[in-house]
Amino acid sequence: MKNNQFSITPTTHQQKIAELTRIGFLPSEFHFANSKELWQHFLQLSYPESGNPANVSQFLAGLLATQDTAVPDFLESYEPLTTEIFYVVALQLLQFEPELDFKPNDIIQSMKKIQLPFLMPTKWDQTTIIDAWYLLLCTHTKNGQTLLDNLTGRGFLTPLYDLPAAQKPIFFNGKSIAIFDPTKLIHEVVYVESSLDTDRDQQADLLKVEILRPGDTNGHLKVPAVYTASPYNQGTNNAWGDQLTHNVNVPLAHKSATTFQTNTTPFTAPTKTITTTATTKQATETFSREASYTLNDYLAVRGFAIAYAAGIGTKNSGGMQTCGSPEQTKATVAVTEWLTGKRKAFTNPTDGTQIKAWWCNGNVAMTGRSYLGTLATAAATTGIAGLKTIISEAAISSWYDYYRENGLVMAPGGFQGEDADVLAAETFSRKLTAADYHSIKPVFHQYLHEMQVAMDRQTGSYNDFWRARNYRLNLANVTADVLLVHGLNDWNVKLNQAKEVWDHLPNTISKKIILHQGHHIYINAFRSFDFSDIVNLWLTNKLWEVANQADEILPAVIAQDNINLETWHPFDNWEESGQQQTWFLHDKSLINAPQKNAQLQTFNDQQPNQTFTDFCRQPAQWQSTMALTSNQFSLCFKTGTTKDELLLRGTPMLQIRVASSTDHGLISAQLVDYGMTKRFNEAPSILQRNGIQLGFNWREDDLREFKLATRATPYKIISYGHINLQNRHNAQQTDNLVANQFVDAQFDLQPIFHHLAIGHQLGLLIFATDFGMTQRGNEPITYQVDLSGSQLLIPTVQRS
Amino acid sequence: MKNNQFSITPTTHQQKIAELTRIGFLPSEFHFANSKELWQHFLQLSYPESGNPANVSQFLAGLLATQDTAVPDFLESYEPLTTEIFYVVALQLLQFEPELDFKPNDIIQSMKKIQLPFLMPTKWDQTTIIDAWYLLLCTHTKNGQTLLDNLTGRGFLTPLYDLPAAQKPIFFNGKSIAIFDPTKLIHEVVYVESSLDTDRDQQADLLKVEILRPGDTNGHLKVPAVYTASPYNQGTNNAWGDQLTHNVNVPLAHKSATTFQTNTTPFTAPTKTITTTATTKQATETFSREASYTLNDYLAVRGFAIAYAAGIGTKNSGGMQTCGSPEQTKATVAVTEWLTGKRKAFTNPTDGTQIKAWWCNGNVAMTGRSYLGTLATAAATTGIAGLKTIISEAAISSWYDYYRENGLVMAPGGFQGEDADVLAAETFSRKLTAADYHSIKPVFHQYLHEMQVAMDRQTGSYNDFWRARNYRLNLANVTADVLLVHGLNDWNVKLNQAKEVWDHLPNTISKKIILHQGHHIYINAFRSFDFSDIVNLWLTNKLWEVANQADEILPAVIAQDNINLETWHPFDNWEESGQQQTWFLHDKSLINAPQKNAQLQTFNDQQPNQTFTDFCRQPAQWQSTMALTSNQFSLCFKTGTTKDELLLRGTPMLQIRVASSTDHGLISAQLVDYGMTKRFNEAPSILQRNGIQLGFNWREDDLREFKLATRATPYKIISYGHINLQNRHNAQQTDNLVANQFVDAQFDLQPIFHHLAIGHQLGLLIFATDFGMTQRGNEPITYQVDLSGSQLLIPTVQRS
Repeated sequence: MKNNQFSITPTTHQQKIAELTRIGFLPSEFHFANSKELWQHFLQLSYPESGNPANVSQFLAGLLATQDTAVPDFLESYEPLTTEIFYVVALQLLQFEPELDFKPNDIIQSMKKIQLPFLMPTKWDQTTIIDAWYLLLCTHTKNGQTLLDNLTGRGFLTPLYDLPAAQKPIFFNGKSIAIFDPTKLIHEVVYVESSLDTDRDQQADLLKVEILRPGDTNGHLKVPAVYTASPYNQGTNNAWGDQLTHNVNVPLAHKSATTFQTNTTPFTAPTKTITTTATTKQATETFSREASYTLNDYLAVRGFAIAYAAGIGTKNSGGMQTCGSPEQTKATVAVTEWLTGKRKAFTNPTDGTQIKAWWCNGNVAMTGRSYLGTLATAAATTGIAGLKTIISEAAISSWYDYYRENGLVMAPGGFQGEDADVLAAETFSRKLTAADYHSIKPVFHQYLHEMQVAMDRQTGSYNDFWRARNYRLNLANVTADVLLVHGLNDWNVKLNQAKEVWDHLPNTISKKIILHQGHHIYINAFRSFDFSDIVNLWLTNKLWEVANQADEILPAVIAQDNINLETWHPFDNWEESGQQQTWFLHDKSLINAPQKNAQLQTFNDQQPNQTFTDFCRQPAQWQSTMALTSNQFSLCFKTGTTKDELLLRGTPMLQIRVASSTDHGLISAQLVDYGMTKRFNEAPSILQRNGIQLGFNWREDDLREFKLATRATPYKIISYGHINLQNRHNAQQTDNLVANQFVDAQFDLQPIFHHLAIGHQLGLLIFATDFGMTQRGNEPITYQVDLSGSQLLIPTVQRS
Repeated sequence: MKNNQFSITPTTHQQKIAELTRIGFLPSEFHFANSKELWQHFLQLSYPESGNPANVSQFLAGLLATQDTAVPDFLESYEPLTTEIFYVVALQLLQFEPELDFKPNDIIQSMKKIQLPFLMPTKWDQTTIIDAWYLLLCTHTKNGQTLLDNLTGRGFLTPLYDLPAAQKPIFFNGKSIAIFDPTKLIHEVVYVESSLDTDRDQQADLLKVEILRPGDTNGHLKVPAVYTASPYNQGTNNAWGDQLTHNVNVPLAHKSATTFQTNTTPFTAPTKTITTTATTKQATETFSREASYTLNDYLAVRGFAIAYAAGIGTKNSGGMQTCGSPEQTKATVAVTEWLTGKRKAFTNPTDGTQIKAWWCNGNVAMTGRSYLGTLATAAATTGIAGLKTIISEAAISSWYDYYRENGLVMAPGGFQGEDADVLAAETFSRKLTAADYHSIKPVFHQYLHEMQVAMDRQTGSYNDFWRARNYRLNLANVTADVLLVHGLNDWNVKLNQAKEVWDHLPNTISKKIILHQGHHIYINAFRSFDFSDIVNLWLTNKLWEVANQADEILPAVIAQDNINLETWHPFDNWEESGQQQTWFLHDKSLINAPQKNAQLQTFNDQQPNQTFTDFCRQPAQWQSTMALTSNQFSLCFKTGTTKDELLLRGTPMLQIRVASSTDHGLISAQLVDYGMTKRFNEAPSILQRNGIQLGFNWREDDLREFKLATRATPYKIISYGHINLQNRHNAQQTDNLVANQFVDAQFDLQPIFHHLAIGHQLGLLIFATDFGMTQRGNEPITYQVDLSGSQLLIPTVQRS
């Protein structure tokens, strides 16, 4: 176990005393006879399971103070408290086991190894004990939560539930703590009236919102709102999605000018809105178990109201699913407008009873991963007031880059044949309410048909349909502070989706990015990393407006190491300037100096029938054949084995001079880390089912962490890119292509942040059909690559 | 989706009215103008999310009454209610989707296909609507819970939380319903004083018990207790277990008389017990999140108190882990003795404050799987009063058959090298309390060492150590009714563990067994099977003593089909008499008539070095090589392809005449279902994470179901057995064995309940080393099998 905490904020001694007093660890006036008595006092309070002296004594009797002295014996002795004793006991409180996890007789070394913060005062007096105890409460246990959160999950904070609302929230080390009774959370439903009519029924589309807010809001406490827009959370139509999935075994066509419609019929403004007949502070509808994000569950008992909305085209809302259109963004924003007092909502769709978000302090954050984070990004690009920050995880910033790439139809990794229409149908959860669906069916099917034309799988080019779904065009409008999270192995929502946002956010805002070794996953339950604490610090700063130095203490970039488990590094930016490196192609090598003479290498994209079928069924088989065997359908270039560990950062760029044997063609490329080693498993392991208590008798999460694979593998793909040779200038403009005539193409591969271990080789694979992502025509096209006109560039390459 | 419900109990019309009234679906005096009005009343109450007419109307407006009429339009019409309309709406309430899951215009056929119970009254008057509505509430939704439980999870029953304790519990269709407020559950810890001193400190071993009981017990309600004894639930020492795991790559030895100690030093009775200094009704220690069984979670809000105890040798208890010894059984029983008023407990280990289970009605059940179920079985064999029933899942009934077999050291499938000592160390969670462990360490290590001798991995024979751990010797004592559950693919705790109990329980008790297609898993969250309801019906009968016909309506045997998904069949017994079949061995065939002439076939157990290493590392590779290729190390015999589907039931028996080329040897056998087909996946799939609400705002479970594998496989092992050729009479007696001399051995294979599909073949594999389970000496032993003296018998073989 290695601990990585970035969210512990510097606190003065006086402030520590004040905070310890407020949560009950110190009486308001305290006089302890000596430092051991103070320490004993702290220990006794660390067993929230009982206040009875006999039970607490049993707890203390179980703790070792030294290798062979129990705490009660030490307390009775005349021995003074030492650093060793303080931390031998502290580590047991943090759930570490003597001998197994740490050496009681070499405690400092053990703590350094686990990366636990600690103090080494020259004297253990009451001042230093208070400092050390405070730090200990901020320190993570063996199971991925701070000791304070561990105590919280065992009931330590319940006495504070009954504090007057005016004395809430309470912050500890710059973070809001769980003093809000989960059994008193108010669950309520409202219907926000948008200014849209996407189902073309003249009526303004209503948006169902599910809200959880602290019971204390009824006692005049105003709280910020954490809002998650999730098109999935009222249910999905998976069978429909499967049925619409496109055949991808179709040939690429030569492109000429596009003649068909590239957008859908515009929506008009609603002509009918609901007339307010009454106002109320009480909703009349509740909900039982929302599809929740466990990060929000963590926040819900820490004083943040949580709002979920699925948006237009979902169950119990109006409108249609449009897959990322400006209307969906407007619907997303409408909820924030209501939360901040700028839009109407009603307790039901019909009788005109209006309800305000009177309990909201006007500050809103958005959270969520994938489509959810996408809508957070979309909302932020409108510059809407009141949206103070977004925590956008694995989010799409341009739908073109999700379903297309450089003039090609492109699948999100693992979802061959998916497209905007498939996702629209899958998330059109109005279908789940049978009679509602019956009424909207023809209108939605008409829209779906229009989408299918406009999204244009024929040319794969960028057009009006995709421009309308490109949030990056509006990044300059962003006023919310931004915390991005993305998996360095996310082949579904690819890394350029985050990198483009990162690079182009206005510098008037505060921004942070966390890059982890997962694929398309959440990271809030990792043992090695304090993500939930970081989010708490961040939101306490942005929404409660507490000056906790969140902007200053959190690194701009945190990147998880891909060689060493449970290791997270801080950086100032994704790239660092002045450290770019170019590799030239020669024979089968990537070399440092250019070669003057033209050197041609060829490959042919066609597979024998059976091989083609096998590769389609199992892209992993195609991938390993390509990466590991010499074959006719790809070219492979490698560096020599590295003498130093290399850290490769930024967006690699491939320049290639190529000729296709026909009037159309594509080029794909992959960057490969070659070297036999045990790499991280693709998915984190569950260390403990329900191992994380998000509050006391509240919801739970599974404690997770990456482990090394049990077997060594010879390679790993670290980046890739694809281009249609008729889109050499950009994805919109069609360039001509003549058979066997060389053209120069230049395109970005997916951004990287990758440690190449000593003795490994960097590899570059060049090929055409990508069985996992591109369409698969299996045409007999021969490609010639002129190595002298081809090169690979990585913006930052560092030796370590 | 196919629904299988066995727990709906016949109820009179008057009783239905009384129950519907009690849960709030009918007012105590009701007069509806007509049947449609009554139906509308029921529908309106089926939206517990709101009592507001406008919100409820929105809910009704979403329901289709016919293919193209919404419910409100139908209600306003003069059309009468029909079977079709009732069930089109009903299926929507059950979360089925029109067109996707059922055909609104062919509703009867759809319901038959899904196996939903329904009524077809000639007239839909108020009487039949009440009957049909009642049945509907008992019917499972698409997501594996009754409609009533679905409504419960959405808050329907919360108004009943505040009923006076005297009016609780409430039963619906013979089952206790969730009217106990989960936020009012009392969590308390007591320390039961056993009459054991297994840690040899003179003091009676104390046993920590964690109890959840309804808040209503404080209001004079007495409730039954559901008790789970789990040695795991205070934590485990996995690293220690790994470290103790035995090397299994050791040769079998010739056995002569055993000379060493075959039992551990006896424990003596404690000389010191706690003196009661005070009594209390209030515990002084609580707990936060116990390691719970979700079936118990389901029961906890239905009025059953839940008790967990880890027993001797676990964290915060006294004593040592003994892996199944009589002392562990006594410790297990001690908790029941306290629950039934026959033993003392204290609020803490030191000050003598005694506490009674004053809230318990004196009726106790035990639940749990694997080691947990094992201890339930162990407890039942003591015949202890007050233990009314055990629900024993995948339980061990003789530890010899868990770690040994017919004179051989044998691994539980997947756990090569595990033995009683390993499990004792793993579960000795006193180690997790460092100072406590420090005090007990030498005593436990001494015991562990004695175990390691007495369990005897040298001969693998049955001895005093194992006799002490054989609960079957006491099955005649059982007075509790027994519900057994076992996976037909459980290679960990094997099927004979359940079959032996099933066959030898006294016929004075009521017994049931459920055989499912899982391996070593829980089955309480399956979509297709009403296990939780069955348990509720069973426990309501046994613990609340409600005459709900549980014994009569539940089939003696329920066996899940291995060919058809989501299909569960009732049977009267495991076997059926008079249908046994014997196969004789000839050439490579299993044939129906004996062959007179001796026919010898030989195989050699030794593998080339690399193959041996590979097979050790990957037993699956050994298994497929053996089952599918002709090889030197096994013999294979197959029937012809079946013309009818065969149902094979009971304990197969293999008679074999064999000679080993040396003075020791073993014979292993497997029964194989040969035939290329898509079989069930080994593990069920999670259909919906947290898809099952076990109460309202209470704990959750993941909805699961088996799916078919995506690929066809050529075979599946359905049974197996192993014997040491020196244990031809029994596991205790050593028979002589002379090289190359033929001996007759006869041994049982694991019990089966298996459908052999048409066109498949039954196969018998005979070999020696089982890489997954036996020790692996890789000796150059040649075995000769005389086919004329060998035959296979299956007790029940049925054609269908």
